[in-house]
Amino acid sequence: MVDTVKLAVIPGDGIGPEVVGQALKALAAATEGSGVAFEQTEFSLGAARYLATGDVLTDDDLAAIKGHDAILLGAVGGVPGDPRLAGANIERGLLLKLRFELDHYVNLRPSVLYPGVASPLAAPGDIDFVVVREGTEGPYVGNGGAIRVGTPAEVANEVSVNTAYGVERVVRYAFAAASARPRKKLTLVHKTNVLVFAGSLWKRTVDAVAAEFPDVAVDYLHVDAATIFLVTDPARFDVIVTDNLFGDILTDLAGAISGGIGLAASGNINPDGRFPSMFEPVHGSAPDIAGQGIADPTAAILSVALLLDHLGRAEAAQKVQRAVVADIAERGDSRRTTSEVGDAIAARIGA
Amino acid sequence: MVDTVKLAVIPGDGIGPEVVGQALKALAAATEGSGVAFEQTEFSLGAARYLATGDVLTDDDLAAIKGHDAILLGAVGGVPGDPRLAGANIERGLLLKLRFELDHYVNLRPSVLYPGVASPLAAPGDIDFVVVREGTEGPYVGNGGAIRVGTPAEVANEVSVNTAYGVERVVRYAFAAASARPRKKLTLVHKTNVLVFAGSLWKRTVDAVAAEFPDVAVDYLHVDAATIFLVTDPARFDVIVTDNLFGDILTDLAGAISGGIGLAASGNINPDGRFPSMFEPVHGSAPDIAGQGIADPTAAILSVALLLDHLGRAEAAQKVQRAVVADIAERGDSRRTTSEVGDAIAARIGA
Ligand SMILES: CC(C)[C@H](C(=O)O)[C@@H](O)C(=O)O
Ligand SMILES: CC(C)[C@H](C(=O)O)[C@@H](O)C(=O)O
Repeated sequence: MVDTVKLAVIPGDGIGPEVVGQALKALAAATEGSGVAFEQTEFSLGAARYLATGDVLTDDDLAAIKGHDAILLGAVGGVPGDPRLAGANIERGLLLKLRFELDHYVNLRPSVLYPGVASPLAAPGDIDFVVVREGTEGPYVGNGGAIRVGTPAEVANEVSVNTAYGVERVVRYAFAAASARPRKKLTLVHKTNVLVFAGSLWKRTVDAVAAEFPDVAVDYLHVDAATIFLVTDPARFDVIVTDNLFGDILTDLAGAISGGIGLAASGNINPDGRFPSMFEPVHGSAPDIAGQGIADPTAAILSVALLLDHLGRAEAAQKVQRAVVADIAERGDSRRTTSEVGDAIAARIGA
Repeated sequence: MVDTVKLAVIPGDGIGPEVVGQALKALAAATEGSGVAFEQTEFSLGAARYLATGDVLTDDDLAAIKGHDAILLGAVGGVPGDPRLAGANIERGLLLKLRFELDHYVNLRPSVLYPGVASPLAAPGDIDFVVVREGTEGPYVGNGGAIRVGTPAEVANEVSVNTAYGVERVVRYAFAAASARPRKKLTLVHKTNVLVFAGSLWKRTVDAVAAEFPDVAVDYLHVDAATIFLVTDPARFDVIVTDNLFGDILTDLAGAISGGIGLAASGNINPDGRFPSMFEPVHGSAPDIAGQGIADPTAAILSVALLLDHLGRAEAAQKVQRAVVADIAERGDSRRTTSEVGDAIAARIGA
């Protein structure tokens, strides 16, 4: 019997299609003969689509995507400053809209310094942590506004919205993740001394849920202090749970210290399973190097490992993960093309 | 003729009094015989004062402080988690209240990797930039609230308030600062793709003021990308201008990559001169090492250099700065007490 997984594929812009091509190779290699078939539907979304049609994400697109079991996304976004994109906000209208509409309340971003990878830190130590970033609240809700725009009396506000409902579910997910890891450590990152209302909600929620996970050791850091530890002692972290904006900032920094966002994978997860979860590299569409076949597909391939894990295909996920780690360990400074890297990893998976 | 400067001194908590003592030594050494006398008033403010009296900052305190020409602050804040401080928020009630009441709209935080200082970065390069952090707006305004607190239906909001008035004045200050530096480069850091209203105001303001400073080269980075560059290529930065919260985060990271916040000085400046400006090390009160005489007073002493600069005493400021740089260059791993470091720097200033 063969399970069929309906996979929505959003290659996107720039290097997105290039890296997604390699990710799909890895997916095929890892699941061949494993009793699961991926039925793929490609969605042409992103800056290119907007320029061609004026649409960013239609209701029909969204409905069609919702009919899938999971999503693999490359990267979206046009050339920065392109005047034809001035009227569109592809990030808000597409990427964030998907995260919000599909209730991706867990944005899972592992940071591992793999053997053979150079860190910009002189003494990085053993970096192996995961950031559980809230994905549907905080300053990302789009709840801002401005008056008297363009005058000297302009006021522009942004509202961070945080709910017990939203905070509790992501905090509970983070505790479960910490409990399943060997070190069982959870760090809440916020700015409770300044953002006192949101901070208090996060702090009280962590304290309450902690009672259900007596095996997990909990600590707290202000976001500013957390950036210091990320460069002076990143090995101290195991699971970090934090809000949408702090998570955005910390995960780029986390990617940088573990060898660059060219290696950073992420999952936008709806743990309830009501909506398809979406897996994507943390990097963007990099229009400056697009079309040259030189983009590193590693982060996209690692996103496939997260996708397989999410679908309960732990064995296939580990095949991908192990193949990537082995490839990275031997790559050194070699300059390979996107498809050479993809082929090498796919070959290891199949071996 | 001797000018008299009325200096409010707030030693504060923990290591605050220890490092302020050394900073005052440096101040005395740098201004001896220079025709300026510092008339000092000490204000006992902070966690210790709150525990003793229940007051954080009274109207009388504030009025008295306003009668001074400048403020030197050590550090405020009690032992984290001290239950007796649960009802007080010393940071908001004292530190932020001073910044807001005294209209410290420029929070100036230089980052320099001095010769002889170890960075956690493997290849830090030539780090020499300054962050101009807005100090009176953004998510720091205290404009949050919560409903149904403690129930599953709790909602906690935080509002970031940004005004043309507030953004323009700090942006203009940052351009002037960039224009006065050899590299003449300004980087706006924000998150315009998500915080679209506030981001648009910041972006338009920078574009408008740029027209008045044709000699300054301007670029823009999202805050997440800025953290990457701070660890991969910090030498690219000259002047960064950013909002209150992003500035908080970036300056801790900036301090860390340039050798630790033990060396990071800051000025909370009211450029209009309507209110006294306040100079303080970026570090906190460090209750864990307080009272042992081992705190590093360097950041407090460098804050004195910023203070002297602000008061138009460039020569005295440079004396302090040069003495600190010379001391740092030779300190190596030597373990000196707080007063040994202070004495050594004061002696160099006087030499
Ligand atoms: C593109 C942008 C809206 C997005 C975010 O801020 O979440 C990105 O930075 C990320 O981290 O996935
Ligand atoms: C203590 C805290 C309120 C303060 C801030 O967030 O501004 C501190 O982190 C700083 O950077 O001076």
